[in-house]
Parts: sequence; C-alpha cells; structure tokens
Amino acid sequence: MHLAKVVGKIVSTQKVTPLVGSKLLVIKPVDEKLSYRGSEPVYVALDRVDAGVGDIVLVEWGDAIDPQPSMTGDMSIVGIVDTIQTEE
Amino acid sequence: MHLAKVVGKIVSTQKVTPLVGSKLLVIKPVDEKLSYRGSEPVYVALDRVDAGVGDIVLVEWGDAIDPQPSMTGDMSIVGIVDTIQTEE
Amino acid sequence: MHLAKVVGKIVSTQKVTPLVGSKLLVIKPVDEKLSYRGSEPVYVALDRVDAGVGDIVLVEWGDAIDPQPSMTGDMSIVGIVDTIQTEE
Amino acid sequence: MHLAKVVGKIVSTQKVTPLVGSKLLVIKPVDEKLSYRGSEPVYVALDRVDAGVGDIVLVEWGDAIDPQPSMTGDMSIVGIVDTIQTEE
Amino acid sequence: MHLAKVVGKIVSTQKVTPLVGSKLLVIKPVDEKLSYRGSEPVYVALDRVDAGVGDIVLVEWGDAIDPQPSMTGDMSIVGIVDTIQTEE
Repeated sequence: MHLAKVVGKIVSTQKVTPLVGSKLLVIKPVDEKLSYRGSEPVYVALDRVDAGVGDIVLVEWGDAIDPQPSMTGDMSIVGIVDTIQTEE
Repeated sequence: MHLAKVVGKIVSTQKVTPLVGSKLLVIKPVDEKLSYRGSEPVYVALDRVDAGVGDIVLVEWGDAIDPQPSMTGDMSIVGIVDTIQTEE
Repeated sequence: MHLAKVVGKIVSTQKVTPLVGSKLLVIKPVDEKLSYRGSEPVYVALDRVDAGVGDIVLVEWGDAIDPQPSMTGDMSIVGIVDTIQTEE
Repeated sequence: MHLAKVVGKIVSTQKVTPLVGSKLLVIKPVDEKLSYRGSEPVYVALDRVDAGVGDIVLVEWGDAIDPQPSMTGDMSIVGIVDTIQTEE
Repeated sequence: MHLAKVVGKIVSTQKVTPLVGSKLLVIKPVDEKLSYRGSEPVYVALDRVDAGVGDIVLVEWGDAIDPQPSMTGDMSIVGIVDTIQTEE
C-alpha cells in the first residue's frame, strides 16, 4: 500500500456504471514524514473508508478485495492512518 | 485512477479480436492544474464513455470491470471529469 | 496500451511450456512522434498480430484477453498502428 | 519480488474489513548492498511472516497467493532474508 | 517480459508456504546490449527454467501461468536467452 494525503474531490457525471455512486477523491503521495513526494502526480481513488480532505490514508493499487462489490476501480483508499511509527 | 487529457486517435486495422470495434484514444497524463506532466509519454486507452479530443478523463489501468465485456484492454477511459476541487 | 516499435527478436530454447511456439519480439517504447523515449529500456513481447521489425505497435501489459490461449505472457503486441492522429 | 527493510509500523483504526487484524509494516526498498534506494518512497506492506523492524525482507506486489486468506492487500512481506549471495 | 542477468541467490528460511522449495535468484535488468540499466535495482525472481548466475533471462512480472503450480510469486524467470537480434 501507498501513503497519501487526500487533497480534493472529482466531479464526473459521465462515467461507467461501476463508478456510479462512488466518492472519488484526489490524493497525493506522501513519505513517512508526511511530505509530498516531489515527482509524484495526483491520482484519483475510490473512497472506501469515509475519508476526507486532509486525511493521511492507505491506498491500494489494483483490484482490492472489495467490501462494497458494487463499486470498482483500480485505486482505493482502504484505511485512514492514525500514526506512523518509524525507528530509522 | 489517473487524470489525462484526450489528444488524439489511433487507427489500427490489424489487431486482436477483442479490440475489434473499440475506439482507441491517445491520452496524455495531466496534473490537478491540467498541465501535462513533462516526463510522461502518451498512452492508448479504450474509450468506454464516449470521450472526445480535449476532454479531461479518468483512466483506469489494468482490467476494468467492464460494462461492455466484448471489448477488452489494459487501459480504459472510465469517466469524463467535470470539475476537480482541490484544497491545497 | 503503450506505443512501441519492433526492433528485433529473441531466441530462447530453454523456456517454460506456455512460451513454447511463441514469437518473442524486442520492442522499444515510442512517443506520439514515433521517437524513442530516452529513459525507456527495451522489452520482450509476445506477438499476437504477425508484426515485424519496424512496425509501430500497440502493446498491452498484464494478461491480455487471449485469442490464442495456448500462449501466455505478461506483455503482448495486440495491434499494428496504421496512423496516429493527434490534435495538440 | 523486491528487497526492502522494515522501518516501522502503521496504526490505522478506520479501515476496510479485509485489513482488520493485519499487521501493517512500513518498508523501504534496499539494493543488494542493503543500502536504501534514494528515490524510492516508503510503502506499507502486510506482514505474513512475523517480521520486525530492522529485518531485510522479500516483498511481493499484487495479490499474493495467500496462506491466510482472511487478510488481503496489494503488498505483502513473504519472506525474511537470511543472506544475499551476489557474484558480480 | 523484461531482460535481466542473474547475479546471485537469496537464502530465506522464514517464508510463506507457497515459496517453500523455490529457488530464488537475484536479477538485475539489462538492455539489449546486455549492459545493466543504471537506475534499476536488483529484484528477486522465482526460477522456473533452471537458470544460473551469469545467464541472460526473460522475466515475467505478475502471476505467470505456472507450469509448477505449487510455487508462486510475482516475478518469474520464464526463459534463458540464447540470442538477441536487433536491427536498429
């Protein structure tokens, strides 16, 4: 999984059926110090954990085992990070 | 999902059966300001939402859950972006 | 899908059973102007459309829906490009 | 598989059901000399082998064939490295 | 598929069940001239073709169609390269 910060939302009216009703959040990868990683673009991820702008989140690439099988996508927010403990 | 802009089309006569009848669009990744990302090449994506040149689109990598199972590919346009709201 | 140019062939005698009988072509990614992309290495792709050296081709990553299920691989040439029409 | 060093842990209370009960470790890619690779960020991986901070580990991307099918994720620690023998 | 050179071996005692009994080789990506590609790290791949240190090999990413279904992994050596013929 990747660490990212939620920085915004996407509005998309015209989309494929499996995305209808999904919350689409704009995310930006961060490192363990929660700094943005310079060379990384933003991505758009399905929100599966009721995340909001400003949250640090865990993001899965690929088809996540899906607790809400009616929604689908290739990037999903699967957890909100409370703390990151690093020792080096 | 990735953000991209549709910049053109591909004509390909000789192709595998699952691609026959597909609309193949040339896309270029953009960032949240809709600027092209310098180091990124163009890609070719299946159009699943009737997108056109100039549209900002959501692109899925990998096998999308497919509303039109007769078409297949490893990159699909799954939504047209109306607005991107970012707060930072 | 990715755009690439076919630049050569691979001969491999000792290989896994699913690759026996496959034509393995060396490909090099190109951009929409058909220039090689500097930082990109060559790859080896299964040929599914009878491509040859010099052809500009569409390449799929991952397991393509396979019209010839006896062959398998993680990168396949799925179309030969006739023309690329870009407007910007 | 990738080589990485375990450098910390993640605490996440709000997460999708398949991640409940998983141990989530922060990993940083290393090269064959066990040096961190400068441009690489940290990732978060499911621990399947009881690894700890400081261990050099083998990491799989994508859905690993899972000995504990109740846990899921797109990056898993599948082995602890005892020795790396390189000849060049 | 990717071209790589086998440069070593991994010893790992504590690993997930599907990896038990596998030969794990350290590989380093090469280009068509068989030079190492500077920015690329080493990877660890399952050996499915009885490769050895010094061999130039074809490497698949993702789950290869597996002739030995008892072994699994996200990177596999699927062929030993005899010759690479490039015309440009």
